[in-house]
Amino acid sequence: MRNKIPDVVIRRLVTYLRILTDIEAGPDDYISSAQIGDLAAVNSAQVRKDLALFGEFGKQGVGYPILGLRKELTAILGADREMNIVIFGVGELGTALARYLTTRKETAPNYRFVVKGLFDIDPAKVGTEIEGVPVRHLNELEEVTASGDIKIGVVAVPANVAQEVVNYAISKGIRGFLNFAPVRIKVPPGVRIQNSDVTSDLQELGFYL
Amino acid sequence: MRNKIPDVVIRRLVTYLRILTDIEAGPDDYISSAQIGDLAAVNSAQVRKDLALFGEFGKQGVGYPILGLRKELTAILGADREMNIVIFGVGELGTALARYLTTRKETAPNYRFVVKGLFDIDPAKVGTEIEGVPVRHLNELEEVTASGDIKIGVVAVPANVAQEVVNYAISKGIRGFLNFAPVRIKVPPGVRIQNSDVTSDLQELGFYL
Repeated sequence: MRNKIPDVVIRRLVTYLRILTDIEAGPDDYISSAQIGDLAAVNSAQVRKDLALFGEFGKQGVGYPILGLRKELTAILGADREMNIVIFGVGELGTALARYLTTRKETAPNYRFVVKGLFDIDPAKVGTEIEGVPVRHLNELEEVTASGDIKIGVVAVPANVAQEVVNYAISKGIRGFLNFAPVRIKVPPGVRIQNSDVTSDLQELGFYL
Repeated sequence: MRNKIPDVVIRRLVTYLRILTDIEAGPDDYISSAQIGDLAAVNSAQVRKDLALFGEFGKQGVGYPILGLRKELTAILGADREMNIVIFGVGELGTALARYLTTRKETAPNYRFVVKGLFDIDPAKVGTEIEGVPVRHLNELEEVTASGDIKIGVVAVPANVAQEVVNYAISKGIRGFLNFAPVRIKVPPGVRIQNSDVTSDLQELGFYL
């Protein structure tokens, strides 16, 4: 079933869940598809259609019970499973991401991403710590992935080595990547990669301003 | 002319420039469209087509002079103009972004984004500093935008207030936004917004893993 759902729908469900999680709600609080759509910039019919894919949560004229829908979406997205990640590259962005992703748990009760390892090849960085997580040399990756439960590798290395690092991580069993390097990386079938690049976003925006 | 170029082309040009900037090169170093395409995950014909839009930089059989093409793309993208940005919200991500964007200059010689202001409404944060940039109350935004040279607002506030903050920033003259809040924000014509959300990227990835 998972692979039958279009990526765009999953992306919207993730947005709906983030919206519902940001709302303070009690057991008797409801939200309408129009309200969700408004926050997600999606029309209400689309919201109802997306949620109907997984059964009827809504109540005619009342809307969706916020806590109930939150619970359903969490289950649908598997957002209740803890997910172990590692970060490749602890330069400025890698360090910022490490700090963000490791400290987020303190303020987000349902936050489930656990930074299990930080990797770099710079001798000046290897052996240091970020938020209590030691920075290891990349060639020690297998010691962390051996457990088999590292789901995502966050790629924050320079563009010219990103493909190489991802290839190496794949060889150690990592199947999902969030890439912050300003380069598109090729991965074999069965491996997923998503791209994100703050500076390129700013560059692109800047072109129009 | 700027608005006639498709966004996808601009995005690729930004990627090409980042790739060329990451390469150590001397005056006699050339790069082929195939090499650029390989790093950008674009086919070489597309690379030649994109670059031809702005005149012929390439030399038949030799490729493009790296320094020359870097210079041309920098000019085309206006990537040599300093660009002032402000950051809204100095929670975990806002703080990480502030640290990243303010310290980046030290290591990236051509880096041109200048963090002119950090804004929050939390009394516990207002008055503090991040990398020497003071955190001000949002209602002091006008004192920073009055100069008229703030190009981009980076939105790192909670989803439920993001639209409100962007509306306020637009009223103070900001015309470009990079949004990290997990909500799509509506902006009037003439205002550009791009979205980025690390946690949603991880959530979405996690669904498939």
